[in-house]
Amino acid sequence: MAVNLQAPETLLPVAGVRLASVNAGIRYKNRNDLLLIELENGSHTAAVFTRNAFCAAPVHVCRSHLQHSSPRYLLVNAGNANAGTGEQGMQAARECCEQLAEQGECWAEQVLPFSTGVIGMQLPVEKITAALPQALAQLDENGWMDASRTIMTTDTVAKAISRQVEIFGETITITGIAKGAGMIHPNMATMLAYVATDALLEKETLQRVLNTVVEETFNCITVDGDTSTNDSLVVMATGSSGVYVGGAGLAIFQQALQEVCLYLAQAIIRDGEGATKFISIDVQGAATRAEARVVGNTVALSPLVKTALFASDPNWGRILAAVGRSHVDDLAVDRISIWLGETVLIVNGEPAPSYQEALGAAEMRRDEITIRIDLGRGEASATTWTCDFSYDYVKINAEYRS
Amino acid sequence: MAVNLQAPETLLPVAGVRLASVNAGIRYKNRNDLLLIELENGSHTAAVFTRNAFCAAPVHVCRSHLQHSSPRYLLVNAGNANAGTGEQGMQAARECCEQLAEQGECWAEQVLPFSTGVIGMQLPVEKITAALPQALAQLDENGWMDASRTIMTTDTVAKAISRQVEIFGETITITGIAKGAGMIHPNMATMLAYVATDALLEKETLQRVLNTVVEETFNCITVDGDTSTNDSLVVMATGSSGVYVGGAGLAIFQQALQEVCLYLAQAIIRDGEGATKFISIDVQGAATRAEARVVGNTVALSPLVKTALFASDPNWGRILAAVGRSHVDDLAVDRISIWLGETVLIVNGEPAPSYQEALGAAEMRRDEITIRIDLGRGEASATTWTCDFSYDYVKINAEYRS
Repeated sequence: MAVNLQAPETLLPVAGVRLASVNAGIRYKNRNDLLLIELENGSHTAAVFTRNAFCAAPVHVCRSHLQHSSPRYLLVNAGNANAGTGEQGMQAARECCEQLAEQGECWAEQVLPFSTGVIGMQLPVEKITAALPQALAQLDENGWMDASRTIMTTDTVAKAISRQVEIFGETITITGIAKGAGMIHPNMATMLAYVATDALLEKETLQRVLNTVVEETFNCITVDGDTSTNDSLVVMATGSSGVYVGGAGLAIFQQALQEVCLYLAQAIIRDGEGATKFISIDVQGAATRAEARVVGNTVALSPLVKTALFASDPNWGRILAAVGRSHVDDLAVDRISIWLGETVLIVNGEPAPSYQEALGAAEMRRDEITIRIDLGRGEASATTWTCDFSYDYVKINAEYRS
Repeated sequence: MAVNLQAPETLLPVAGVRLASVNAGIRYKNRNDLLLIELENGSHTAAVFTRNAFCAAPVHVCRSHLQHSSPRYLLVNAGNANAGTGEQGMQAARECCEQLAEQGECWAEQVLPFSTGVIGMQLPVEKITAALPQALAQLDENGWMDASRTIMTTDTVAKAISRQVEIFGETITITGIAKGAGMIHPNMATMLAYVATDALLEKETLQRVLNTVVEETFNCITVDGDTSTNDSLVVMATGSSGVYVGGAGLAIFQQALQEVCLYLAQAIIRDGEGATKFISIDVQGAATRAEARVVGNTVALSPLVKTALFASDPNWGRILAAVGRSHVDDLAVDRISIWLGETVLIVNGEPAPSYQEALGAAEMRRDEITIRIDLGRGEASATTWTCDFSYDYVKINAEYRS
C-alpha cells in the first residue's frame, strides 16, 4: 500500500552501536516487540519530543534523564504507548530503566525508555524486564534491519536508511530507522525515529544540528494534524570513527543527517494510513517562513483537498478555498498564483486562461503530486509533505483497536 | 441520513417579505434553483460573510451594496458558486443585480446576490435573468417552504424554522431558512442562511444583535474546518409588525433570534456530509473563551476523534491526545478532567479509577454525544458542535462533482 516505498536490503552498522530485538510478548505473538540499543561509553545523544501536553510517561522520563546523564541504553517497546496511564505509568517507565541499569551496569538515568502502541493501558513491566537478559545477550552491531521491524506497529513497510559521507577524506556512517505514523496514530501512538552516527561531535553541536534538521524534515510532514503523545526523534553520535565533525565539516555532516531524516520523514508519509498518493505542497513568495508553513499546513490538512487528491479529481476550487481560509493577515488574493504540477490554475487571483480540465486531470492521476502556491508577498518559502485521504483511512481508524 | 432532523411542516409568513422559487435551469433539471426574496421598503438588513480571502464574487458585491443602500431584493442561485471566477464573475454578479433592479424598479445597489454550487465555473447570467420575470410575478408571502428547498445543494433535509415571541404584549415573527453545509462543501460551496422578522429595529442594532448571536450559533459549528468561499448569513427586519424592539425588549428579541439561528446552525451539522452522530464538545474551566474555543475546535476537527465516534469506539486516548496538542500555552495536564457523556474518563490528568470500557462503549453508541472537557484554569467556557467522520464523508467528497 505504501507509495513508492520499499524496505532497504541492507543497512550499515555504526561503530559503537549494538542492537537487539526480542519478543517480550507485550502485545504481539509471533514477532519481536522489544528493541534494545546500546551506545558506547562517551557517546552523545540529542533528541526532540512531542509537544503534546498529554505526553506519554516515557517522554517525561527521557526528558529528565537527558538532563542528568549521557545515555548508554535506549529501550523501545511496541504494542503499548504507556500514555494516559498517570502516575502508575511513570513508575512503570522508571522501573524498566532501573532493571536495565542493574543488568547493564549503568545508572538508571543512563537509560532512555520509549513506548509505542495503544494509549491508556498500563505497561506490562514484568514482561519487559523478563526479556532484558536475552536482549543484552543478543546485542549485535548488525541488528539494524531487525530493529527497523521490531518498532513497527501498523506500518506496512520497514523504514530505514544508511548513508556514508567523507569529511576531509575520512568516512563517517549514519544509519537511521523510523516507524510511523505518529500524527496519524494517537492510539498506536507514535512517530519514533533513531539515527546513529560514528562521527565525533560535541553534545551541544549535535542538538543544534538536530534542531535545524528537524525543522526541514520531520516538522514538514503531516497526515491529519494529530500529534501523538509519544513522538520522539533521537540522534546518537558515538564518536567511534574518530572523525571529528566541526568547523567546515559540520555542513557536510548536517547535509547527510538531513538526507537521512528527510528520507525517514517522507517514508512515514508514503506509508501513511490508507495513503495512495504522496503530496508535496510548496508555498513560496511568503512574507515569512511561518506564514508559508501556515498556508502549506492548511492545504495539507484540508479533508476536502485530501479526498479530491484520493479521487484524482482536479477540483482546484478546494485548494483555492483552503489557501483563502489560512490564518494569514491581509492575504491579497490578486497576488496569489497556484500550480498543480506543471499546470497553472490561478494567476494573480484569476483563473488561468490556459487551464483545461484535461490538464488538471492528468496531473491528478499521478501518484506523486506537487501543489505550488505563490503568495506574491515576500521571499520566504516552505514545503509540506502529506498524503491523500482514502476510504482506508476511515476504515483503519474506525476499526483499529484491540 | 440526517441525525434527528426533519423539515418543518409549516412556516409562518413574515409581514413585509415575499418570496418566489423558480427553475432557471442553472444546473438542476427538475427542481427550482433560483430564489428571489423581496423586502418591503424601509426594511433593514444585517449580514455576516465568510472570512475566506478567496471569497466569491457575490460576497464582494453584497459587501459593497450593503454599504451603499438598504436592500429591496435578495437573489439566490443554487448550482453555481460564482467563486474562483475572477473579474468575469464579478461582472456576472453585477449584471444579475442590474437586470433585477431594472425589472424590480430599484437601484442595482439595492439587490444582494448569493450563489452556491460548484467553484470555478462562470455563472450563466442569461439563464438567471431570463427567469426573473417569472420570479417577480410569483412573489408570495407564503413562499418560505419552497424557498428552503430551492437553496439546497447536497442537503438531504430542508432546514427551516419559525418562532413567534411577545414583546410587551405584542407579537413578532421570525422565520429562517438555511442550507448546509458551508464548511464541508467548498465545491458545492456554502452555508447560506436567511432570517426575516417583522420586528422594527434600527439598522445598527440589528447588526449588533446579529454579531452577538452568530458568535453563539453559526460560529460554534464545524464539520471539517473548511470555510467556504460563499458563506453568508442575512437577517432582515421589515418593521411591518410595527413592534419596536429596543431597550428591555431587545433581550427578548435577541433570545428568539438566537434560538432560530441555533436551530439552523445545528441542523447544518445534523445534515453534515455522511454524518451519523451529532456531537457537542463542552469546554469549561478555560482562562478565556478563545482558549475554550481552540480546545473545542481541535477536538472537533481531529479526524481520529471523528472516526472513533463514527465507529462507536470508546478510544478516549484520541480525545486526550487532541486536547493535549491544542495550541494553548502552559496547559497543565494535572488540572484537566474529561467526560464522555456522564462517564468520567480523566480526573486531574489521571485515568479515572471508576472508568470501565463498557461504560465508555455505552456512551459511544448514542447518536447524540457530549464530550466535556474541564481545563481547570479559569471560568470561561464554549461549546462546539460537530458530527462524526464516516465512510460516506470520503465517498461523497471523493466522488462528488458534475
